Amino acid sequence: MAWACFRGRAMPESLTSLPERVRIVEVGPRDGLQNEPSLVSAEVKAQLIERLIDAGVRYIEAASFVSPKWVPQMADGASVLERVLPAARRSATTLAALVPNMKGLEAALASHVDEIAVFAAASESFSRKNINCSIDESIARFEPVIAAARQANVRIRGYVSCVLGCPFEGEIAPDAVARVAARLFDLGCYEISLGDTIGAGTPSKTRAMLDACAAYVPVHALAGHFHDTWGMAAANVLAALQRGVATFDSSVSGIGGCPYSPGATGNVATEDIVYLCEGMGIATGIDLGRLADAGAFISRALGRETSSRVARALEGRRRREAATH
Amino acid sequence: MAWACFRGRAMPESLTSLPERVRIVEVGPRDGLQNEPSLVSAEVKAQLIERLIDAGVRYIEAASFVSPKWVPQMADGASVLERVLPAARRSATTLAALVPNMKGLEAALASHVDEIAVFAAASESFSRKNINCSIDESIARFEPVIAAARQANVRIRGYVSCVLGCPFEGEIAPDAVARVAARLFDLGCYEISLGDTIGAGTPSKTRAMLDACAAYVPVHALAGHFHDTWGMAAANVLAALQRGVATFDSSVSGIGGCPYSPGATGNVATEDIVYLCEGMGIATGIDLGRLADAGAFISRALGRETSSRVARALEGRRRREAATH
Repeated sequence: MAWACFRGRAMPESLTSLPERVRIVEVGPRDGLQNEPSLVSAEVKAQLIERLIDAGVRYIEAASFVSPKWVPQMADGASVLERVLPAARRSATTLAALVPNMKGLEAALASHVDEIAVFAAASESFSRKNINCSIDESIARFEPVIAAARQANVRIRGYVSCVLGCPFEGEIAPDAVARVAARLFDLGCYEISLGDTIGAGTPSKTRAMLDACAAYVPVHALAGHFHDTWGMAAANVLAALQRGVATFDSSVSGIGGCPYSPGATGNVATEDIVYLCEGMGIATGIDLGRLADAGAFISRALGRETSSRVARALEGRRRREAATH
Repeated sequence: MAWACFRGRAMPESLTSLPERVRIVEVGPRDGLQNEPSLVSAEVKAQLIERLIDAGVRYIEAASFVSPKWVPQMADGASVLERVLPAARRSATTLAALVPNMKGLEAALASHVDEIAVFAAASESFSRKNINCSIDESIARFEPVIAAARQANVRIRGYVSCVLGCPFEGEIAPDAVARVAARLFDLGCYEISLGDTIGAGTPSKTRAMLDACAAYVPVHALAGHFHDTWGMAAANVLAALQRGVATFDSSVSGIGGCPYSPGATGNVATEDIVYLCEGMGIATGIDLGRLADAGAFISRALGRETSSRVARALEGRRRREAATH
């Protein structure tokens, strides 16, 4: 893919056709629940994951093997994975877990995950405040983890955060994102998920960032991880689809909020991405009605309203239909 | 502009560069307040309009001269216009009013509006249920209104509703939209605003509908009027910008709700479109902070929360900054 330089307001002249099919990486059970103030039991988490599988979701980040001291919401990862493994195996659903270090990797392997995920930031300040080390140090720490995972025949997904802005630094240069993405890819991550942590990105910034990354990492190995904090997620997904990206992370019902904006929307809702894609003739393999049911289930368990506009619109339609019949 | 046929999932190969500048048609004081359950006084409406002018908004649909029996929220149009006329004249802001018939036109002219707006539907069922006549009849009724407005040197804007779906008929063919748009344009409307009344459209449907309309009406005379009910408005605006559309209707704070989906979001928030455009280097002439203040003002007056994600994110940022300092 050619490096397409992006300047000013002009969008690139050539538009590739959109992907035929999109792969959804459901991060609600991990990234979502990890950022919710309410705790839910392993049983509820397992039920959520099984409902997602029933809806046709085939990739679920189900747990995080980080210190329970820092992330109490994720302390029961082994128990959750044990419960959902049969349903995942029957449906050929990939189960993944986030791991910060060798200890986390060992726990993840003991729980028979299919894949692990590691994470770095594109912002030096965010890296230091979030994981207490520089970007270089964080990547150096992951080297043995990635090597050990590869030896265990477990694929590794890499996250890069702050790709469209940082809560501490503000703007982040596209090339800074591309350099971190390239290093994780070169270390052996098969896919790099590019996260708009503060959810403030716009389509043109998304495009410029993807162009920069595509100079180092094949576009089929890039995933979009958008937050809807500023309401731009659907537009950013469209811009990414137009750039050839065909994998998107999302969280059912938009669970997870935004840790940098209390009360605000964080992860884009899976329902919204599925509606957007299917409404453009792009297959996701997911049944929107069942997905929305899974979202309603976890929203009830958390005692919160859904953040998904699609889920709200579907619910409104159901109520009107019930009133008519 | 060539008629570009749109089939299946492929987006058209060529992408025009984005507009340099976008014109925002603020419809909150009319379309927005008309669809709110709470009534606000003429004084509050006038304050809202003056705040919008202060924020840099230069086109405001300020009133509707329809029967107060049907739309009590709009009964005080003459009083609102009288209050805001000085501020509008000083700032060269265009004031417009919706008119359904000759009586409405006379009232609008007596109030010294700069422009009027007339409305038709792309859906036969919607036309009959909403204005109690067929599409043909509705256009025939507007013929003398448009002729009289032209004689009075008042420009006429035409609305077409249900351009991406109808609450009664479901899908609406792009060509059905194009035919109604063409008739209003041929009658003398200088601009045709294309309304996604149910807010269920996606970017590919937006594109197909615009391609159909552009076969009859120059793209510079087309405006996008998107609802965010299914969370697709920002993506649809992007698709319209990519098709060369440079005028968008929106409602500050997203006021107006969606009459076909109680509790759901209707009009896309002006804040969200301004953020999207300015964040892509497209000038709107509007100060986002002041605009959000106007949105907070009217949300308080209505006793509702804002529907704008951008307004919520801005408010979160202000709170964090206040806590830090």
